[in-house]
Amino acid sequence: MKVAVLGYGTVGTGVYEMLRTADGLEPGPVLVRKGKACEPFMTTDIGAVLSDPEVGAVVEAMGGVEPAYSYAKEILSSGRHFVTSNKVLVAAKGMELAALARSAGAAFLFSAACGGGVPLLHNLSVASGSDRILSVSGILNGTTNFMLHAMQSRGLDYAAALAEAQELGYAEADPTADVSGMDAARKILLACAVAFSRLPGEGVDCEGIESITAEDAADFMGRGFICRLIARGVPVGDTVAAYVEPVLFGDGAPERSVAYNSNMARYEGKNCGPMVFIGQGAGRYPTASAVLRDLSCILEGRREMMPEGCVSVRADNSRELHRYYVRTNGPIGDELPIQETLVSGPAVRAVTEPVSVRVMHDYAASVRSEGGNIFYAALEV
Amino acid sequence: MKVAVLGYGTVGTGVYEMLRTADGLEPGPVLVRKGKACEPFMTTDIGAVLSDPEVGAVVEAMGGVEPAYSYAKEILSSGRHFVTSNKVLVAAKGMELAALARSAGAAFLFSAACGGGVPLLHNLSVASGSDRILSVSGILNGTTNFMLHAMQSRGLDYAAALAEAQELGYAEADPTADVSGMDAARKILLACAVAFSRLPGEGVDCEGIESITAEDAADFMGRGFICRLIARGVPVGDTVAAYVEPVLFGDGAPERSVAYNSNMARYEGKNCGPMVFIGQGAGRYPTASAVLRDLSCILEGRREMMPEGCVSVRADNSRELHRYYVRTNGPIGDELPIQETLVSGPAVRAVTEPVSVRVMHDYAASVRSEGGNIFYAALEV
Repeated sequence: MKVAVLGYGTVGTGVYEMLRTADGLEPGPVLVRKGKACEPFMTTDIGAVLSDPEVGAVVEAMGGVEPAYSYAKEILSSGRHFVTSNKVLVAAKGMELAALARSAGAAFLFSAACGGGVPLLHNLSVASGSDRILSVSGILNGTTNFMLHAMQSRGLDYAAALAEAQELGYAEADPTADVSGMDAARKILLACAVAFSRLPGEGVDCEGIESITAEDAADFMGRGFICRLIARGVPVGDTVAAYVEPVLFGDGAPERSVAYNSNMARYEGKNCGPMVFIGQGAGRYPTASAVLRDLSCILEGRREMMPEGCVSVRADNSRELHRYYVRTNGPIGDELPIQETLVSGPAVRAVTEPVSVRVMHDYAASVRSEGGNIFYAALEV
Repeated sequence: MKVAVLGYGTVGTGVYEMLRTADGLEPGPVLVRKGKACEPFMTTDIGAVLSDPEVGAVVEAMGGVEPAYSYAKEILSSGRHFVTSNKVLVAAKGMELAALARSAGAAFLFSAACGGGVPLLHNLSVASGSDRILSVSGILNGTTNFMLHAMQSRGLDYAAALAEAQELGYAEADPTADVSGMDAARKILLACAVAFSRLPGEGVDCEGIESITAEDAADFMGRGFICRLIARGVPVGDTVAAYVEPVLFGDGAPERSVAYNSNMARYEGKNCGPMVFIGQGAGRYPTASAVLRDLSCILEGRREMMPEGCVSVRADNSRELHRYYVRTNGPIGDELPIQETLVSGPAVRAVTEPVSVRVMHDYAASVRSEGGNIFYAALEV
């Protein structure tokens, strides 16, 4: 099958290269921006891709909603298979594109949009046909894991860890999407759609790593914990709980072995039990390898990843309870029930009673809105 | 699709139960031994299964080569799909059954035969279409992992750990296949076939856990290591290195978090990089869930797991080099180059220079043939 590629950045170049040696696949035309078509196989005209009768599948690796969305509609309408690594596109338009693919008899797969090379969505999708998925979670952002690992293994402060991540090309010049947790939130949203047929379009609570300090790391590490940024989705009634927040792990947790910019994904099935995947969550070849696996699956007959009955929901995080490790620059208000005060003084460190994700994130927002400073992380017991 | 089940033991009952709620699947007749047909859906006649025109696929969960092999040939010849959890059958007859399935246009999948619920073979199979697999390894036997974990986390000696594993139903009355490493060897053999298209029928070196003592565990744990039983396969020239042996892991290795009877599988792809899977390697529902995932994949069009070009080879472990931690009840012979002696005296503990798997396993065999006692484990650096 000849496969066209839209975009020739990090992922697109990796996909093009891997297509040259993959079983049953060969590279077709590559769409690039005006003025960038420097090789015979490149084109700047989407029409040239769409009118090529040999192209059986198209990989989109441009990012963003437009023009990827318009192209995707044309590609699927023409009966061609569509594979994307673009989480923003799938989060915004995935259900619509899935319906279009279904009516055209074409495949729509997006493994690379969540977890990079870690095959979370594929395995979730296969498992959900016969097992009931009880939860899905993971370390889904390699940039923040690199920073947290650097802070905890080498004692760097936040600014130094960020600078190093930028120098190595892991973090963008504007790192907001990574450090705010938004990137991880978009990924867990896709995992919820695949695992639970519910795509939480709103209500996803999202705490990143921007508040963690070297002192925080020294304190909780002294108590035997390490910190990772975790995205999590759980079915709750007709909707899901879906959120991103730092979590502290004690001894024996596999999260402790997730170093540098690796990713980790977990799910728990009623029958298969807990399942853990660790691998490269980003980068040219790991991400391209996820795209190529989707294409190999299409050759075998696989068509769907977004379930037919998937609906958009508002996340409900009011029933997910955790104890939290909290550090503030002033006293902790009564809204947050404290189980144990670890350090008192102007900077307070404490562990809460079990409170909901909703309550904890709201409390932090209120502290910050009054100019206060707070770091918090759920305690994994 | 109606699915018949051969065998109603641990795995068969789990498969039957899961078939009742899986998308697109329903349970058909279940073949049981004479005198065991106590439910209307059971039969003791394989002819009743083979003559049922509604049965589209058959799951074999009986174990052993015969009569599973004869049944498999009849099932595949009739064009029905065949899914098995039987590693002995696949190791002995897998290539022949794959050829038969191919010519009949039927599927032959065996995910559950290696790693139980851990989706190693499925993911290896998908990845090998577009990526080059550089190595595959893992903790593929839950019984021995339970015993090693018990010895290292609670200080039990070997006999107490084995007794506990038997009491909990993890180990058979005759635990030889598990503790000798033979069970893990059969599984890595299947992984080599799927990953490298080479099935090592001979030459697989296999050291189990029978020689480890509580004193060994105390010694290497005091040096910062933990021990796991690892099966490993690597392409070497036209063949593979394939072996099972205890390995010591230092801080930060994900193997450290593999507790109780869990399994872990790793592979490394040229493009995807290192990949780790952790989950339940045995038990009714985890194993059944692997069978059900294969059946779901068949509904989507998947047919093959044993690659078409797979050949039988003799494993070559003469080029895989490791440093080994060695404990003997007497002096270590010159055949084994020693880098560092840790404890001298009648019982010697030492670390070797890098030596081949072949040399190490041969040396241990020679010590034992002379009535000596030896424990060894590769040092993962």
